[in-house]
Amino acid sequence: MEHTDANTNIDYLISQIREFLQERDWQKYHNPKDLAESICIESAELLQLFQWMSPKEVRAFKEASSNVKRIEEELADVVIYCLSMANAMNIDLTSTVVHKLKRNRKKYPSKLYHGKARL
Amino acid sequence: MEHTDANTNIDYLISQIREFLQERDWQKYHNPKDLAESICIESAELLQLFQWMSPKEVRAFKEASSNVKRIEEELADVVIYCLSMANAMNIDLTSTVVHKLKRNRKKYPSKLYHGKARL
Amino acid sequence: MEHTDANTNIDYLISQIREFLQERDWQKYHNPKDLAESICIESAELLQLFQWMSPKEVRAFKEASSNVKRIEEELADVVIYCLSMANAMNIDLTSTVVHKLKRNRKKYPSKLYHGKARL
Amino acid sequence: MEHTDANTNIDYLISQIREFLQERDWQKYHNPKDLAESICIESAELLQLFQWMSPKEVRAFKEASSNVKRIEEELADVVIYCLSMANAMNIDLTSTVVHKLKRNRKKYPSKLYHGKARL
Repeated sequence: MEHTDANTNIDYLISQIREFLQERDWQKYHNPKDLAESICIESAELLQLFQWMSPKEVRAFKEASSNVKRIEEELADVVIYCLSMANAMNIDLTSTVVHKLKRNRKKYPSKLYHGKARL
Repeated sequence: MEHTDANTNIDYLISQIREFLQERDWQKYHNPKDLAESICIESAELLQLFQWMSPKEVRAFKEASSNVKRIEEELADVVIYCLSMANAMNIDLTSTVVHKLKRNRKKYPSKLYHGKARL
Repeated sequence: MEHTDANTNIDYLISQIREFLQERDWQKYHNPKDLAESICIESAELLQLFQWMSPKEVRAFKEASSNVKRIEEELADVVIYCLSMANAMNIDLTSTVVHKLKRNRKKYPSKLYHGKARL
Repeated sequence: MEHTDANTNIDYLISQIREFLQERDWQKYHNPKDLAESICIESAELLQLFQWMSPKEVRAFKEASSNVKRIEEELADVVIYCLSMANAMNIDLTSTVVHKLKRNRKKYPSKLYHGKARL
């Protein structure tokens, strides 16, 4: 079975990361400060794909499947470190995200923010 | 039912984000360049929690449940934008992460990298 | 005399930072890893001023003097940590920048790169 | 004459950048949003030099002159984009930094913050 967003929970992904770390004895590196740094570093590599691009160039860029692959690569690096942070801190990422979305719903009432990012 | 990492797939989380965006007509903001920026911005807020802390201070910090809450908050912001990027680009995050972990396994053979982050 | 870009060298700015640190006994925090983190954190706060803005909105934003003040504030934070890094590492920033610009001139020959950021 | 922090003002550095941009017709890329992005991207490359390092490893790393060279390289990239932002926004960096340091002196009274980064 191929693992996809439709058939896999986050526990499985975290178990894969835990295995990867154990094989290399790398758990010792995974403190929250160094993980937060690594999330920053990988985020910037993702952003670099779009450096100096106009909105029009971004729209053209994302149409090429080779560019989607590059975005996937860099996004995966960010997500792997986010999962690693959840693992290191015993955070349940799903419930954390669900709760945060609920709070964002209250913080940005759709009547006030409809169609605009700032008031 | 409470949604947790044990019983929820990423499709559900992305569907929640899509609903949140539609209610506010915010899909128009979610181009990959601006999303990559937002991932960077939120990552830096996560890192800021640990600014100037020694490893010893980090270990003490993460023991207080009020601090775990703050890490959860900031981590959720990063993850929500990662899920938004997957949504905007039609990326299957699960298979992307699984593939990247496979490649990392080859890139960092456990025999060579056992116990060390760099050769 | 007001200190300006026309009448002040970087040594003066670094001497001001050194004094600020000594008064607070903060030199101990200024190791290059934590300084690099702080540069990242402050850069992201600068970027946040422009979050979700279209090029047209950026052009309008930068015309208001109150917004220029906000950019100045955040840019100053980044620059102060860059000067602090130079101080902590005994780096001469002027000659470092001059040398890097020379190398960039060779790396990006004006004939090849005229009017374009990428080949 | 070699340009150093002791004999050069920031106006000179900015004039060098302006010349570099004019030769390549690159002024059009230098809007504040894209410059803020580039400052973030280069900051993260600077931070990457120290990824996963313990304080002890950082102290050893910075003793090797080849590593100081690498720090100089990455720091120069950040500073060049900060100077570019000042150029694009007509900001006087010297007076901006001097004013910010004055405000930081008030924000962090030495009596309260002596020897500690947080209260």
